[in-house]
Amino acid sequence: MPEYILNLLPLHEGEREEFEIVAPDAAHVYARSSTVTPEQIAAATVIFGWPRPEMLRQAASLRWFQTMWAGTEEYDGILSPQVRFTSSAGSNSRSVAEHMLTSLLALCRRLPLYMDSQRAHVWKDEGPMKTILGGTVLVVGAGHVGSDFAKLCQGLGAETVGLKRTVNGPVAGFDEVRAMEELDALLPRADVVALVLPHSPQTVRLMNEARIALMKDDAILLSAGRGSVLDQDALAEAMKAGKLWGAALDVTDPEPLPGDSPLWDVPRLLITPHVAGGMRLEITHRKCVEMALDNLRRYVAGEPLHNVVR
Amino acid sequence: MPEYILNLLPLHEGEREEFEIVAPDAAHVYARSSTVTPEQIAAATVIFGWPRPEMLRQAASLRWFQTMWAGTEEYDGILSPQVRFTSSAGSNSRSVAEHMLTSLLALCRRLPLYMDSQRAHVWKDEGPMKTILGGTVLVVGAGHVGSDFAKLCQGLGAETVGLKRTVNGPVAGFDEVRAMEELDALLPRADVVALVLPHSPQTVRLMNEARIALMKDDAILLSAGRGSVLDQDALAEAMKAGKLWGAALDVTDPEPLPGDSPLWDVPRLLITPHVAGGMRLEITHRKCVEMALDNLRRYVAGEPLHNVVR
Repeated sequence: MPEYILNLLPLHEGEREEFEIVAPDAAHVYARSSTVTPEQIAAATVIFGWPRPEMLRQAASLRWFQTMWAGTEEYDGILSPQVRFTSSAGSNSRSVAEHMLTSLLALCRRLPLYMDSQRAHVWKDEGPMKTILGGTVLVVGAGHVGSDFAKLCQGLGAETVGLKRTVNGPVAGFDEVRAMEELDALLPRADVVALVLPHSPQTVRLMNEARIALMKDDAILLSAGRGSVLDQDALAEAMKAGKLWGAALDVTDPEPLPGDSPLWDVPRLLITPHVAGGMRLEITHRKCVEMALDNLRRYVAGEPLHNVVR
Repeated sequence: MPEYILNLLPLHEGEREEFEIVAPDAAHVYARSSTVTPEQIAAATVIFGWPRPEMLRQAASLRWFQTMWAGTEEYDGILSPQVRFTSSAGSNSRSVAEHMLTSLLALCRRLPLYMDSQRAHVWKDEGPMKTILGGTVLVVGAGHVGSDFAKLCQGLGAETVGLKRTVNGPVAGFDEVRAMEELDALLPRADVVALVLPHSPQTVRLMNEARIALMKDDAILLSAGRGSVLDQDALAEAMKAGKLWGAALDVTDPEPLPGDSPLWDVPRLLITPHVAGGMRLEITHRKCVEMALDNLRRYVAGEPLHNVVR
């Protein structure tokens, strides 16, 4: 049976041809996640993109599905067991890392206060600032995002420590890689603590009241990955009591954060609405396309795929 | 006549002793710029720090004055001609560079919009973002600050071009160094234009309406150094008409910016109140002290001083 490749990636001019050159014998069908038809889903043997999970229940011919992002939990229990499932882990890691660095620097230099002053037309000096030059950045989760963020921090002169479940050698960007079990011992050393963990039973509320208390009083906390990793009520209480120089959350629990959440008004807390990743940079777009092309080449050649989820 | 060293630097514990070891035969007097007496000024043969300019008119015994910052124009015409005058050019260049990078990244990732949303308790996606990875950063003024800023941009994967009055070899942080005369030719190539020039007859309104028009429609403009370099009315008009992705000014003309200035409300414009430099980071403090110690060592040994203004 010939392959029917349903391509839901938001392709640019010339990019369709790249797929057709890699798999010349396949049927290539291009659609958007918002306009794809049940017939297309039912006929597809390969799908690239980010379809709504429930649509995939109709994918009767599907052999392989590659999603656009690193997160895969939304497809848990949806795909039938014989479907090969790959992710695009790392496709937006640079974007997330840049967002984390931006938030970190904005806190260091008190930009939120200065923006409030600008809105009020007030020229006011807010005093001392912070730099990460010479500081220690502890990255909880040394995957693609953690590694890219650590590289950026090293470039600014910070010492970087990464935590992983299983330590098996060095990871780019990190001066040290340690086991997750050492978290409590390392928290008091860190000037910056960055959470970049997926949602899992092991990560839920990993950053709790006790661990926030272990941080330096003037440290900075960053949270990307998934909001469930952080006890955000405990963070709010600690910060209202004066703990931490600042914190930046790009992920919350739940999302969207309800309008009446007290979190919005916590002092020194910066909230962005889960926009660190996604398709916001051209480099992310291109990386998604290249990861799809690379795995399609492997699929056609019968070679092992990259980024296998299961 | 023995030296009377009036030290107005904000010294930390143990730092007085460092000065006394370098010049053991001198009288060392420590004061603050706000509390120093006319008698101390009159007796001083050497002054370190940032006294109010008019106080120095009483400095009858002065042989050498080293100010804390790079800017020296406030002392023009104050010091008698036989007084040696040195600056601390570079003492806060890393701080200014970090502030410029912070503002640049904040604009790239639309942080001002997200902060407005946070104040309104609104979870709203603002769409595409920018990265400087692979972009061209044009730094107008390749001195200490320009060089430090360029290094940070290179670390994030940008190509850097520096402009100097006189090109005489490479400057750290820059992929290319070109003559100031090439500004108009280079503006259309730049994704980021950073102004880091002192005030002088040559620099006043250097960045005018015509040059802003030469920039890419989605470029970013940064202004540190001195506010007089930029025609801020022209910038406001251009930005209101949709020109530029964003701009960040840490310096304005005049300063403080009056509360009724229309500049405060220009869309996509970030204003901070001349806080990029100054004594806001511990690393700046230490650099000022080390630059004073280094020149004092030279002064005692009869060697040429560094950072000679005249």
